[in-house]
Amino acid sequence: MAERTENPRAEQKAGTPDSYARAGVDVAAGNEAVARYRDVLGGWRHPDQLDAIGGFGGLFRLPGSPDRALVASADGVGTKVVIAAELERYGSVGADLVNHCVNDILVCNASPLFFLDYIAFAKLDPAVAAEVVAGCARACRANGCALLGGETAEMPGVYHGRHFDIAGTIVGVVDIANLPKIESVVAGDAIVGLPAVGLHTNGYSLARTLIPPQEWNDPFEGGTYADALLAEHPSYYEPVRAIQAVAQVKTMAHITGGGLLENVPRTLPEGVKAVFEQQRWSVPPILRELVRRGKLGHEERYRTFNMGVGYTLVVPVTDAAAALAAAPGATVVGWIEARAGGEPRVVIHPARGE
Amino acid sequence: MAERTENPRAEQKAGTPDSYARAGVDVAAGNEAVARYRDVLGGWRHPDQLDAIGGFGGLFRLPGSPDRALVASADGVGTKVVIAAELERYGSVGADLVNHCVNDILVCNASPLFFLDYIAFAKLDPAVAAEVVAGCARACRANGCALLGGETAEMPGVYHGRHFDIAGTIVGVVDIANLPKIESVVAGDAIVGLPAVGLHTNGYSLARTLIPPQEWNDPFEGGTYADALLAEHPSYYEPVRAIQAVAQVKTMAHITGGGLLENVPRTLPEGVKAVFEQQRWSVPPILRELVRRGKLGHEERYRTFNMGVGYTLVVPVTDAAAALAAAPGATVVGWIEARAGGEPRVVIHPARGE
Repeated sequence: MAERTENPRAEQKAGTPDSYARAGVDVAAGNEAVARYRDVLGGWRHPDQLDAIGGFGGLFRLPGSPDRALVASADGVGTKVVIAAELERYGSVGADLVNHCVNDILVCNASPLFFLDYIAFAKLDPAVAAEVVAGCARACRANGCALLGGETAEMPGVYHGRHFDIAGTIVGVVDIANLPKIESVVAGDAIVGLPAVGLHTNGYSLARTLIPPQEWNDPFEGGTYADALLAEHPSYYEPVRAIQAVAQVKTMAHITGGGLLENVPRTLPEGVKAVFEQQRWSVPPILRELVRRGKLGHEERYRTFNMGVGYTLVVPVTDAAAALAAAPGATVVGWIEARAGGEPRVVIHPARGE
Repeated sequence: MAERTENPRAEQKAGTPDSYARAGVDVAAGNEAVARYRDVLGGWRHPDQLDAIGGFGGLFRLPGSPDRALVASADGVGTKVVIAAELERYGSVGADLVNHCVNDILVCNASPLFFLDYIAFAKLDPAVAAEVVAGCARACRANGCALLGGETAEMPGVYHGRHFDIAGTIVGVVDIANLPKIESVVAGDAIVGLPAVGLHTNGYSLARTLIPPQEWNDPFEGGTYADALLAEHPSYYEPVRAIQAVAQVKTMAHITGGGLLENVPRTLPEGVKAVFEQQRWSVPPILRELVRRGKLGHEERYRTFNMGVGYTLVVPVTDAAAALAAAPGATVVGWIEARAGGEPRVVIHPARGE
């Protein structure tokens, strides 16, 4: 935990070796890269850099305002871009990326200021690029965030065929007094979960091996597999602010790569564990389908996918009812309990029959 | 000019259709993408967004400090990454990217605060990723800039073989009173040029067609072609600050994609032109070689490559001598002259014999 908190690159994608290895993603390599980055940086940091909360965003003291900090995060959308490219459905990946970034810095309680994108193609198609940027612009506007700039690159020889990649960086601002305090979390607190609509932006390399391209346009749950796979990563900015208006929110986590198992501990103190009861929320059909097809075990499913919980907030149990009333779809998904040394930091009790 | 100034995406790569088309880069597509972005944005911008200077960076009012602005820019290093990957020489592309970004916001007179990277591979090699990040860290440190975060993605199916891509975003700060004033430039001003060491981060798709991979390890000018092609994009932060300490600097330009022909006009008023005399500076041997091999005409060479001038500063002629004395290698590369309507905005007089 300590090294993750201090490590600005803690968002390294992770997953279980088994499932990701099948999909061509090497989790051990990811972890080794993070360790090597730490060596490379050798403890060096800028004097205005501040401790980050669980590595969801980097903090930098706001020039001229010693009591405020800028919070920045860079990300991509993983191989969700492969599905978008293969199906020529480019409308949502830009919004996926912006909303992912908004949620990441929201973990630090930051309000977004501006976003910049980077889009690269083997062969630039202006209509495609514009559709991707339109998705960024739509999500930026919805989040009250400027689309301050971007770069579009044509890179013959780097990208496969019609494939492209998109990355983005967001910068927000927070009052340092309002940074979540990990040590405020105590046994007995409730964990409120905000619902996920699907994979969001994680687990796509595995998903693409379990649901191959020739099935993407087949019907699934009232739409197609493609609809379910491309479902847009939501921004949790509004529901989180609504909950904060009526409840004390102690810490939060954005459930991205690594799932509940890896993201929740990033914002908990050592002496507690998070105990989830999966019967308390519903798992989106596309995630159930992926679990079924891949015969994914407990660990695999909860480390690779969000499994239906997109964002978590730790609140005093006395504030839980108010929190649920403030945000449609919010549910109590678990509890904070005392943790003895050596116990896992996250326990997930499966629903009956799973 | 007006639309570029207002357009936060003005860094779209450009070049002459002829030369880039040979290299697989479609300049018309790039220009069309920029036009479409403008339509997509539909004039929308955040109330705290400010007019940018020539599109080199996006400006956003600093929260709590109405007289200061954050300046942000996103970029990549083009297909210089292809050479790095093919030769397994990863040490400088990170620094190329950081220095490129530092120079871009320096055009707005901004001092860098922090940088975030995005690196994506088909197959993650932790040692390679660490070498790339080490280059970023080294350049960040040299520029007094925090390496605040980053994302490393493994994207099977998106990237070719051992190829990878790197993108970055920088955020700096400037006093609004110190933003360069385009209208201050007048006929008679001198243009001071800072020397380029090679291609920097532009023109690599063309360069790779003119100097094929099998020649990269061949000797060239006391080293190899690879050495010359991978020469590190310098940061102009220190020489620019040194010049500003002794000279009035009116506007500046970072000579990236589009060369002198496209970058210099971005920071000039309509009523003047920049007249360069190429005999006043030396063209790096690798650029001469590319011009020779490609039989690149005047327009092609000056729009695709920096041709030896990496950064320009417009100063009153009375300050030129002091400026040159302050920065090693700086030379007067040209002059500002009055421009009649319809005249080109940049004129470059070739050296004798070219």
